[in-house]
Amino acid sequence: MTQAPTPMSSLLSTIDSPADLRRLSRSQLPQLADELRAFLLASVARTGGHLSSNLGTVELTVALHHVFNTPEDRLVWDVGHQTYPHKILTGRRDQMGTLRQFGGISGFPRRSESEYDTFGTAHSSTSISAALGMALASKLKGEERKSIAIIGDGAMTAGMAFEALNNAGVADGRLLVVLNDNDMSISPPVGALNRYLAQLMSGQFYAAAKNVGKQVLKGAPPLFELAKRFEEHAKGMVVPATLFEKFGFNYIGPIDGHDLESLIPTLENIRHLLDTDSGPQFLHVVTRKGQGYKLAEADPVAYHGPGTFDPAVGLTKPTTPPRTTFTQVFGKWLCDMAEADARLVGITPAMREGSGMVEFERRFPDRYFDVGIAEQHAVTFAAGLACEGLKPVVAIYSTFLQRAYDQLIHDVALQNLPVVFALDRAGLVGADGATHAGAYDIAYLRCIPNMAVACPADEAECRQLLSTAFAQNQPVAVRYPRGAGAGVEQPAGLEGLPFGRGELRRKGRGVAILAFGTLLQPSLVAGEKLGASVANMRWVKPLDAELLFEMARTHDALVTVEEGCIQGGAGAAVLEALQAEGLTLPVLQLGLRDEFIEHGDPARLLAMEGLDAEGITRSIQQRFGDLLEGGAAGLKVVA
Amino acid sequence: MTQAPTPMSSLLSTIDSPADLRRLSRSQLPQLADELRAFLLASVARTGGHLSSNLGTVELTVALHHVFNTPEDRLVWDVGHQTYPHKILTGRRDQMGTLRQFGGISGFPRRSESEYDTFGTAHSSTSISAALGMALASKLKGEERKSIAIIGDGAMTAGMAFEALNNAGVADGRLLVVLNDNDMSISPPVGALNRYLAQLMSGQFYAAAKNVGKQVLKGAPPLFELAKRFEEHAKGMVVPATLFEKFGFNYIGPIDGHDLESLIPTLENIRHLLDTDSGPQFLHVVTRKGQGYKLAEADPVAYHGPGTFDPAVGLTKPTTPPRTTFTQVFGKWLCDMAEADARLVGITPAMREGSGMVEFERRFPDRYFDVGIAEQHAVTFAAGLACEGLKPVVAIYSTFLQRAYDQLIHDVALQNLPVVFALDRAGLVGADGATHAGAYDIAYLRCIPNMAVACPADEAECRQLLSTAFAQNQPVAVRYPRGAGAGVEQPAGLEGLPFGRGELRRKGRGVAILAFGTLLQPSLVAGEKLGASVANMRWVKPLDAELLFEMARTHDALVTVEEGCIQGGAGAAVLEALQAEGLTLPVLQLGLRDEFIEHGDPARLLAMEGLDAEGITRSIQQRFGDLLEGGAAGLKVVA
Repeated sequence: MTQAPTPMSSLLSTIDSPADLRRLSRSQLPQLADELRAFLLASVARTGGHLSSNLGTVELTVALHHVFNTPEDRLVWDVGHQTYPHKILTGRRDQMGTLRQFGGISGFPRRSESEYDTFGTAHSSTSISAALGMALASKLKGEERKSIAIIGDGAMTAGMAFEALNNAGVADGRLLVVLNDNDMSISPPVGALNRYLAQLMSGQFYAAAKNVGKQVLKGAPPLFELAKRFEEHAKGMVVPATLFEKFGFNYIGPIDGHDLESLIPTLENIRHLLDTDSGPQFLHVVTRKGQGYKLAEADPVAYHGPGTFDPAVGLTKPTTPPRTTFTQVFGKWLCDMAEADARLVGITPAMREGSGMVEFERRFPDRYFDVGIAEQHAVTFAAGLACEGLKPVVAIYSTFLQRAYDQLIHDVALQNLPVVFALDRAGLVGADGATHAGAYDIAYLRCIPNMAVACPADEAECRQLLSTAFAQNQPVAVRYPRGAGAGVEQPAGLEGLPFGRGELRRKGRGVAILAFGTLLQPSLVAGEKLGASVANMRWVKPLDAELLFEMARTHDALVTVEEGCIQGGAGAAVLEALQAEGLTLPVLQLGLRDEFIEHGDPARLLAMEGLDAEGITRSIQQRFGDLLEGGAAGLKVVA
Repeated sequence: MTQAPTPMSSLLSTIDSPADLRRLSRSQLPQLADELRAFLLASVARTGGHLSSNLGTVELTVALHHVFNTPEDRLVWDVGHQTYPHKILTGRRDQMGTLRQFGGISGFPRRSESEYDTFGTAHSSTSISAALGMALASKLKGEERKSIAIIGDGAMTAGMAFEALNNAGVADGRLLVVLNDNDMSISPPVGALNRYLAQLMSGQFYAAAKNVGKQVLKGAPPLFELAKRFEEHAKGMVVPATLFEKFGFNYIGPIDGHDLESLIPTLENIRHLLDTDSGPQFLHVVTRKGQGYKLAEADPVAYHGPGTFDPAVGLTKPTTPPRTTFTQVFGKWLCDMAEADARLVGITPAMREGSGMVEFERRFPDRYFDVGIAEQHAVTFAAGLACEGLKPVVAIYSTFLQRAYDQLIHDVALQNLPVVFALDRAGLVGADGATHAGAYDIAYLRCIPNMAVACPADEAECRQLLSTAFAQNQPVAVRYPRGAGAGVEQPAGLEGLPFGRGELRRKGRGVAILAFGTLLQPSLVAGEKLGASVANMRWVKPLDAELLFEMARTHDALVTVEEGCIQGGAGAAVLEALQAEGLTLPVLQLGLRDEFIEHGDPARLLAMEGLDAEGITRSIQQRFGDLLEGGAAGLKVVA
């Protein structure tokens, strides 16, 4: 890779906090923004991470920290993957090389990382709620601080953003919502709101609004105040101009989010409106993802979250094809099953790429539904489709299904509707860290009546268990981890595996390891070392009680292994089943400890959790060393 | 009680299905509506149930079944407690006497109860998602049916309704959304949307719209079609008239929802628009809760869900004051703690009355936040408040916290913010049935790091554990059931109980019963009968490991008792802790079985689940009879 053009920053290198930034004159800010963009590009090219969204927020970040008195004023960045410029300007410039790496800084805002990170984000659409809470707390405490939510147009489609707007529009805190409208969430935007925003940005509105910053500036208070009132009066109360005004906000925009000459005076005026308690403010800013880096402007999806690359060259195709991921296994199965069964419909809450549905959309556009960032709606919409005899497959990350938990219980499970949940990113997720942990799904799903939960051990089983799930007349979740599996070849057909049945994979003595999911592979290695039996349980619910009880009756102790939380997880299901059968024997539960686990390399994290072959072996030896025979001798070569 | 005026229905008695209704001439419909209203009033007065909302939907129900071809066309009633007229007209008139009683018909729509109940509802705001699913399924299958969601203005504030509108506005199914605008959810309406709807209903709009039904009728297609297009053109695409048009719907209304002469022709025109694939339709209907019964019109809140009463007299004050409920214990504690600590703020998602916050709002209006039916926002808003040093108490039913599960994990627990969750209606809920079951909270909360979960055994402990929760610097949920407790007097002060510690309540031999929550009372009775020890565990998380291990080491077997699901519940926490400590002994888990439990009298349901004193005694005797001494002789007098 050629040397990245490390920026020789004359200005950026002097900015160790927003206070330094605020000491610059307004005429210096464009240069700072240019340096910041160059630094950002070079930095992300070295570490990987989110690029397009951060290139789009450079000027907005500079302007916000310049106009507002951070950290006294609170910035809440929605989703938060666009906060690299914010991190660079708030004292973390030198730590950008550690981004998203174990022990390094997070790819999202974190309260524990900086006082400028006022609220941890990562899941979408929380910012208005949080900022409103801060604004009303300040009001109660008699403080003068302002609270500012910065939210993208994609995040605005989630229901909780509207719940917050609905509440904020009648509350009188010092709240500003900045809509960062770049017309692109990770998947292309969908839905009526995005169409509406496009209308606002269309010629008629946008052309007139381009100079709004200067216009607003002209009318300095109190003249401005008067003009505003007149305008309100002219509009009438019944038919205000925009949707956001209907919610009680003072709508300003759209303005060019890359033009500091528009941004700064507009924000200064808004600051004055907040100071004078003029009600909740809404600023519509139009930005471009990838702004300033031609390759990213041309293909913002590809540069959404790239790995390392040479900025002079751009992304290149990997020379060796990467191993098949579980996401790809799902994507292929979805197309194959759709071909075989016309009842199949596929639903994604705005994660077409991440969930492996690009090919499915291409081939079956009528049966593909991207509902926007709207997990709640996605699940109940699927229930409605199922009521009419279709077979919906909801592709969703484990962590995002948390958003639709009630809908899964109340609309799907209670009515026992045949909806398949393809749960991607179950378990540890690596660089995204604790906010995205797929650690809880086994516990929160298996307590729900009528639900079934499958944990494929490899790529072949993933395909087979999806087929099994699809054949059931009840809701079934199939959970699989991020990334590639063991490299097992997938069968061509669509035959399933038996519902609720596991298999014995290694016959040993003394101790039986019961593996749920992909940790079967290290469990087999451990079983070999220890001379222990190894069962591939496959199903958390229904549990294969016959296999379990046979293992319990023919061994002195059991070990459960899962990539999920121990509390209430698959191991707990084993304990419950044993007690219900009157079987009491020692069981060691291996899984994720009861803490939020930080970002880092997945293999390293798994090892830290003691869930690689070595860790599993060591834990079993420590607890049940006296019960092991034969293979236990092999222990000495481990570690 | 005087004899209710059982209506001598000349028309209603001939209606055994909507097909019968559709055979009536339009001139007969007002009489039918009157008879239906009288029957409804007499029926609810005898059984108890929801009244105000059902009195408000009489004409709308008659009109919908008259105009649409139900059940081929799908009616999806949001929340569903307003479906008594629908039940009466769809063959369940004679079953209304069994409403909400064990084995009787449900107070909500249920797919298993009638083909006219196309989608089970009870939790708010699911109807548009479900109806859209049905509409798009029909389209895919080439069917001509229409799907109709009927949703109240309160339910419209929930985010998932907006997610669905956003998706539906750009989809081209045969979908009609009927907004039943009665300006009153259970708590008074809040938020910007309700203010906006009030504007739509204000003089200017409503007066002009009153005759909209007839006007629309005049322009028969294709003339009508032409007029519509002209109107659209005149409006322009950029500034449509209403918020709902911004979402892509054709907005019609508001019209008088009690005037069949407006309703029927308007719905007939809409039916035509749907038949001609004119895009999603939105009808704004204005109704009055309690309509036609003066007492309910005057006080719709009191008549929202009354018990039995004499329609001629109305509700009367009970002569003996009812026992204190846990809801009241919470309400009093909230006021007392607010008095003592200025940092306390109280948050409810539109359940002021149900959660016992009426007095708190009266006394501390600035610290009371009703955010509307918006559980997701409620929890993240609380997180924002907590970030600024306030101490939020979120009062929410166990079943509704399911709506904010991700927010609890991602915004509260991950940031370890001190938010107290006052979880009402935990466990069985009685007449509301499976949709409202508070059965899963222990399982879905204890798997989340940083969460603590307390289960008070009686009223005194409820107050004390709320104080303990409030004193912690982390999120704590305090779960308590619907209704009254054992009648234990509450202490006057605000002292808490030790965090994470239980107590031994009865010292016995052989078997130790570990009770979590209010089932301590029947457990003590069982313990007495059986000579068993009884521990009041109080905390599911952190578990009192010291007490647990002592019980395990000094008894031959343990029994866990909880009013919650067994899968992953408190008993599972006990099993996990025992295994982690290397203690293997038989444990019997008593709790709610892995099925959705129907509506009925709570005491009877508890007995059916084997969770009354007799059931607990019997289960222990069956499983551990050989381990019991002394007290076991007493068994024979049980049953």
